[in-house]
Amino acid sequence: MIDSLDIVTIRAELLALQASILDGLQALEPKRFARDAWTRAPDSPLQGDGASCLVEGGEVFERGGCNFSHVKGKNLPATASARHPQLAGSPFEAMGVSLVMHPRNPFVPTVHLNVRLLMVKPMDAAPTFWFGGGMDLTPYYGNHSDVVHFHQSCKTALDPHGTDKYPRFKAACDDYFYLKHRQEARGVGGIFFDDFSELGPQGSWEMTRAAGQAFLPAYATIVEQRMNQPYGERERDFQAYRRGRYVEFNLVYDRGTLFGLHGGGRTESILMSMPPVVHWKYDWAPEAGSPEAALYTDFLPRKDWLNLARQ
Amino acid sequence: MIDSLDIVTIRAELLALQASILDGLQALEPKRFARDAWTRAPDSPLQGDGASCLVEGGEVFERGGCNFSHVKGKNLPATASARHPQLAGSPFEAMGVSLVMHPRNPFVPTVHLNVRLLMVKPMDAAPTFWFGGGMDLTPYYGNHSDVVHFHQSCKTALDPHGTDKYPRFKAACDDYFYLKHRQEARGVGGIFFDDFSELGPQGSWEMTRAAGQAFLPAYATIVEQRMNQPYGERERDFQAYRRGRYVEFNLVYDRGTLFGLHGGGRTESILMSMPPVVHWKYDWAPEAGSPEAALYTDFLPRKDWLNLARQ
Repeated sequence: MIDSLDIVTIRAELLALQASILDGLQALEPKRFARDAWTRAPDSPLQGDGASCLVEGGEVFERGGCNFSHVKGKNLPATASARHPQLAGSPFEAMGVSLVMHPRNPFVPTVHLNVRLLMVKPMDAAPTFWFGGGMDLTPYYGNHSDVVHFHQSCKTALDPHGTDKYPRFKAACDDYFYLKHRQEARGVGGIFFDDFSELGPQGSWEMTRAAGQAFLPAYATIVEQRMNQPYGERERDFQAYRRGRYVEFNLVYDRGTLFGLHGGGRTESILMSMPPVVHWKYDWAPEAGSPEAALYTDFLPRKDWLNLARQ
Repeated sequence: MIDSLDIVTIRAELLALQASILDGLQALEPKRFARDAWTRAPDSPLQGDGASCLVEGGEVFERGGCNFSHVKGKNLPATASARHPQLAGSPFEAMGVSLVMHPRNPFVPTVHLNVRLLMVKPMDAAPTFWFGGGMDLTPYYGNHSDVVHFHQSCKTALDPHGTDKYPRFKAACDDYFYLKHRQEARGVGGIFFDDFSELGPQGSWEMTRAAGQAFLPAYATIVEQRMNQPYGERERDFQAYRRGRYVEFNLVYDRGTLFGLHGGGRTESILMSMPPVVHWKYDWAPEAGSPEAALYTDFLPRKDWLNLARQ
């Protein structure tokens, strides 16, 4: 009874999180976000419903979405439960809010947020809950104070749930959002966690929710400060080129994307993460000492942004 | 002795194939192709050399490359030899020519060609040779006679090596270049074969070479006929949108791309296949009856282009 009560409450809290984030972003964006609610057909591999809320061709956000989804399946794929092989094949529910925003202004970083819950219900045992998610920032022209603000927002949200959480999830984020074939980080990180249950179902959810609630102030402040900074063709070109890395990461490595695409998820909602305009160029590198080179030298290398090691 | 002689000859023949294709494409393209020869550093996971020959920002080809590579490894990855698990971990050599051309004019189709050889040299047995490759066409605005010409060129090249080859490889191409998450073919197909050895090493190479040599006349004719057809922003938009499917296929499904990226291949040469400018749009579909809709209704559905079933 507690479990089913929790799921209903968590669903409501996730929908409220989605709504509050959308309200906050809409306050920055003159173009209205569109809402596309969906329910999977009864013969789909995954049952469920959701709402993709997106903007394309906006003034501030060139493309972006904040999606809620709640799907149910009869057989947990083995790939979803590598750490818990005994649960493969069990009925499951997955629920979450997922967001990617690709701003138009190259001085505003792209951002990603995810909060999710996986509930596995084996026939012969109590349900198991795992939580996951995080948020991370992908600047084109980095700004040190933005990165520190973003990381500090993550730490402040997580500290009440244990001061070990930020350093662990920060390191996991750096490990995860890494393009091995480029030997390059996707961005400046943030926090990432997966298969998390160590605070118990309720405590783990509260930590996950706190991470989600930290997103809007963490990101909106950066957007407000950078969205009116003048830019030209050069900055737009660099942005389009760097967005190629985002595509490469999401389609080659991202577990959520691949799980969704291979597992019968809703393609258009999953690929909401793709940037609107992307360029690829052969063996391109920025001129040494240029503002573009600073991304590679000053921001992508792994760093202790909050200088925790010194404290 | 025969084996090492074969490899030297095949290498020369592949380099000659690359050169003749580049000469043929250069005859159509005012901008010079650039040549980037490379040798892997001694500490790379794959040893070897190659030459990437590419054009970017050309008048006819907006981005494209025709690459030769010859790599040697000490341990054949298990993923490369799923059908021959006993050979995993053996020394191997892989050699081939790989081409992708993304034309500027949306009435000219994108094209892909690959011819390759994998030689596995187990410690305690004679070398094993497998051949693979094929070519396939990805139109934006399809043209029935172009598609028939391309398929007929494939059939004409393969028939001397057995009339079963074209129908088998045509079906394998349709199976392979398919985006499961879109339930959509990448293009109008062509031929695809892999793990091929049934004509013996020499006979299998001759068939593979014949496929490679058929490429230039198969494609150049189409380019010449369509490259001066007028187009506007609408056609360019559709091309950029459809190129997103090319990216999705290559990064999510293509075995060569993933094997290369995960296995320490040369990233910039592998990602030569990425289009120069790509757009993603949410849940976009062409207007019924439009020229864009014709791609979906008349070209992407699987077809017997040469009407072999009727003959």
